[in-house]
Amino acid sequence: MADKIYRVDMKTLTYKIEEVPSEWLGLGGRALTSTIVAKEVDPECHPLGPNNKMVFCPGLLSGTSAANSGRNSLGAKSPLTGGIKESNVGGTSAGIMAKLGVKALIIENIPDGDEFYHLHVSREKVEFHPCPELVGKDNYFVLDAMLEKYSKKVAVMSIARPGEMKMLTSNISVKDPQGKLRSHGRGGLGAVMGSKKIKCITVDAEKYKETTLADPEKFKEASKIFTKALKDNPISGEGLPAFGTNVLVNIINEAGGLPTRNFREGTYEFAENICGETMAENIKNRGGKTTHGCHAGCVIQCSQVYHDKDDKYLTSGFEYESIWAMGANLGIKDLDLIAKMDALMDDLGLDTIETSVCLGLAVDAGILKYGDGEEAYRLIKEELANGTPLGRIIGSGTGTLGKLYGLVRVPVVKNQAIPAYEPRAVKGQGVTYVTTPMGADHTAGYAVATNILNSGGYVDPLKKDGQVELARNLQIASAAVDSTGMCIFVAFPALDDPKCLPALIDMINARFGSNLTGDDVTNLGKYVLKLEREFNQKAGFTSADDRMPEFMKYEALPPHNVTWDFTNEEIDEFWNF
Amino acid sequence: MADKIYRVDMKTLTYKIEEVPSEWLGLGGRALTSTIVAKEVDPECHPLGPNNKMVFCPGLLSGTSAANSGRNSLGAKSPLTGGIKESNVGGTSAGIMAKLGVKALIIENIPDGDEFYHLHVSREKVEFHPCPELVGKDNYFVLDAMLEKYSKKVAVMSIARPGEMKMLTSNISVKDPQGKLRSHGRGGLGAVMGSKKIKCITVDAEKYKETTLADPEKFKEASKIFTKALKDNPISGEGLPAFGTNVLVNIINEAGGLPTRNFREGTYEFAENICGETMAENIKNRGGKTTHGCHAGCVIQCSQVYHDKDDKYLTSGFEYESIWAMGANLGIKDLDLIAKMDALMDDLGLDTIETSVCLGLAVDAGILKYGDGEEAYRLIKEELANGTPLGRIIGSGTGTLGKLYGLVRVPVVKNQAIPAYEPRAVKGQGVTYVTTPMGADHTAGYAVATNILNSGGYVDPLKKDGQVELARNLQIASAAVDSTGMCIFVAFPALDDPKCLPALIDMINARFGSNLTGDDVTNLGKYVLKLEREFNQKAGFTSADDRMPEFMKYEALPPHNVTWDFTNEEIDEFWNF
Repeated sequence: MADKIYRVDMKTLTYKIEEVPSEWLGLGGRALTSTIVAKEVDPECHPLGPNNKMVFCPGLLSGTSAANSGRNSLGAKSPLTGGIKESNVGGTSAGIMAKLGVKALIIENIPDGDEFYHLHVSREKVEFHPCPELVGKDNYFVLDAMLEKYSKKVAVMSIARPGEMKMLTSNISVKDPQGKLRSHGRGGLGAVMGSKKIKCITVDAEKYKETTLADPEKFKEASKIFTKALKDNPISGEGLPAFGTNVLVNIINEAGGLPTRNFREGTYEFAENICGETMAENIKNRGGKTTHGCHAGCVIQCSQVYHDKDDKYLTSGFEYESIWAMGANLGIKDLDLIAKMDALMDDLGLDTIETSVCLGLAVDAGILKYGDGEEAYRLIKEELANGTPLGRIIGSGTGTLGKLYGLVRVPVVKNQAIPAYEPRAVKGQGVTYVTTPMGADHTAGYAVATNILNSGGYVDPLKKDGQVELARNLQIASAAVDSTGMCIFVAFPALDDPKCLPALIDMINARFGSNLTGDDVTNLGKYVLKLEREFNQKAGFTSADDRMPEFMKYEALPPHNVTWDFTNEEIDEFWNF
Repeated sequence: MADKIYRVDMKTLTYKIEEVPSEWLGLGGRALTSTIVAKEVDPECHPLGPNNKMVFCPGLLSGTSAANSGRNSLGAKSPLTGGIKESNVGGTSAGIMAKLGVKALIIENIPDGDEFYHLHVSREKVEFHPCPELVGKDNYFVLDAMLEKYSKKVAVMSIARPGEMKMLTSNISVKDPQGKLRSHGRGGLGAVMGSKKIKCITVDAEKYKETTLADPEKFKEASKIFTKALKDNPISGEGLPAFGTNVLVNIINEAGGLPTRNFREGTYEFAENICGETMAENIKNRGGKTTHGCHAGCVIQCSQVYHDKDDKYLTSGFEYESIWAMGANLGIKDLDLIAKMDALMDDLGLDTIETSVCLGLAVDAGILKYGDGEEAYRLIKEELANGTPLGRIIGSGTGTLGKLYGLVRVPVVKNQAIPAYEPRAVKGQGVTYVTTPMGADHTAGYAVATNILNSGGYVDPLKKDGQVELARNLQIASAAVDSTGMCIFVAFPALDDPKCLPALIDMINARFGSNLTGDDVTNLGKYVLKLEREFNQKAGFTSADDRMPEFMKYEALPPHNVTWDFTNEEIDEFWNF
């Protein structure tokens, strides 16, 4: 039985099951969410109004046994950036939706009343349940209620109080295989779900249709090669499993690119306290797990389970970005406190990057002091979660807080907070931040790989030479990878192992009976980027939005004393492809 | 002695007196501020950073005896809209600067420390006085201190606490002839002054150079004709002097275009309580003055002095926009309370439109109730003025509050609050709101004149026909008038009396010995608009910014049940000139 489009209308609380239009058949993940958003959403619409849509699409290989293929893409017009957004996530939703035959779940419109709904998606059916008992509750409460109502296997996507309040820092949380949470993190998409009055979406995991393969033998063979490439690579096969993504703290700190105290310095004197090595040591001494997969079939296992001094569970999926954002960025050095904050943000469905960078800016506004983790925790738990005026301010994200307090040193691109790599000191990554249609985003084209990790060659991070080309190539590749359902970390072997990418393409061909080549994949990436940029242009973006915050042009970053020194013309070259 | 450019550097606390470049000689007011901003300010700069500039320019006829020529223009990149801004004001600053020979006062850069300064401008000299005794004080305190330090005649431009805090609702207050205040109201320019750490600017009024006239006889003759045209016109000669601008409450209410309760209705059931006729009746019964000029030489006298029931001074310059914004927009019907709020906002240097529309939206956010004027007053006096978190929210303006609370019905264009004419019911005015480079602004092209007041003919306000052309012609004319230093109300006789505009042009020619024609004036208006639009485009604006809030497209406004029904293409036609 063929995959279908599930189309939900929240105004009428009705749904349609539609055939997949032929032009969408070869698309998945980001390629399909961006295609549908570009086709169906008015770029000038209010992102929290009735004319925005949420589009969930599993990747092309989601639902298969391919390693690391469990990413689910969510597309919409972002209320944070005002542009198109694709935010992908691990967890179980991609695999379950794919196996159920959901090519895309499109959610339209807004109900008339104030009631929130729980949507349950099963084989060619969508149910709408008013859920007053879940309103005002946070993610783990919702998750537990759904696991009790259905089974441990059910896919769950939910928002907590910040999402209900349509805060721009809110994300959408997704159940992982162990019953913990992963997030559609960036772009304030929790607010879009809140605007549509959807508290949670569950997807039935019992009555699978199962994903079919056009050529199972060919698939198996390619899959073997692909998995080996992942395991043989020193980053995806060693560094990430051993220390998680948090292996990066020491590496980026040594490179002078670890943004510290709201992007004032490139090194953090307490990096040792919060680094991946310390985290692994703690786990070894206390209990917990250094390796943990965020979705079925993950062979990298960069996630972990982190316990406190008394061997009590603190958090899981304890990522470099989060640890940097609450650590170096806020001048906090207590890793356990950071873990506690991370768990709180999971439960509240908050983008740890946006929220923590906003807190870093809140120091400039006089709201918080560097190093005061207890107060940072309180601000989130008491103020933000309860929607007090101060909580609204922190929940509205970095750019909005900057406007409220008349601040100039506001680290955002397209109103989205800059992540954990200083663009002045990791210039290729900076080019990705300013040019990607997503707003400042590290996953859109991870130039850190080639600037610092020597993956895919080496381009000096402190010099401008070659960075635009590097960021362009990586963004094209990432847009394609984001369409497969693959985790972005497959980029490491793909950049260095000549067998990796052909094996990935072979798996896609074996799944669909297609004849894609490497050029087709590159062209898919280009198509996605151009489509997204065109949406943004119609929404009002120009090259003036492809810019770093002005202060980085005149404020030199220690220790390398580097500024953001690209001319506008050099940056605008990015789009010449 | 020729006019000069006064150029101030706030970083070094130095100044230069420069010759006027030949290409600026024939420009004044808005034409000159926009020319200088476009030439010298990087459109991509942060509006509160060191690379923005403040440019004060008296109009071409300021400093002369021409009736109603006392408007001063201030140009900058607006922190509210992100685009170019010209905000002009009555009061005494234009006349005094013009007589002193200040063609333009350009203020650049930002001091290194936290100290605020008082700048004193006198003949070819600028003094910088640190002023800790004024910090944290509001406008009347500053005004009194300056009048004591200098003389009753000194020109004073100041910011209050909201400006110090760089709030986007803050304006710059200017002393009027009677020692009360007028405002460079819109676009958050008080925040720009705050960012430059300038608490107040005084301009010496004793050692005048006096404005010279190339042909005094011709000037006198033209001036007589011009003054007669102003006095003979039923609006500028009768309606405005009798009831102030507040004559409009009943007129606009009857037309169904009085935005009520955050743009939900077009009529206000308590219009009678707040209208110009009631205001005039109160003044007659209590004391105060129905007529009052905001600058020397005003023959319209639309301002007034308003007393409370005990004949105690409440406020002056009690304008229709303010009365609407606090009245119909907030569902408040007590005119005396509105007067008290108006006086408070004068003292605090707040744009009454932006602040009150923001309060109207705060009702949707659950912060305030319609009709609760006492709480609205408290929110401004206690929260906003003290910069509490809630105060910051209200002080950040309508668009930002909308983002903080995830609201969709947000009445802004280019992030600036829509003023007192419902664009759905006064469509020509709506075209001005969306197309002017200033953001929603009623003075940029006052189509109400022809839509409702039968001035310059009649174009049905409820129909689309002819509105784009009307708004275009009015905006071209307004851009020219804003360059003369003339009050915008000269538009009424200019639209209907064939002798008015030629007399205005004759005065300019007699002042400068020039030979301008009507075509030259039209071309000046076109030049200004295109220059401003070009700045905005470089700053990142596109036609997607020339749009009404989306909710007005699908929400019909009572009583006429009209929507904003222009297509994008129809609106974009505006710029075809």
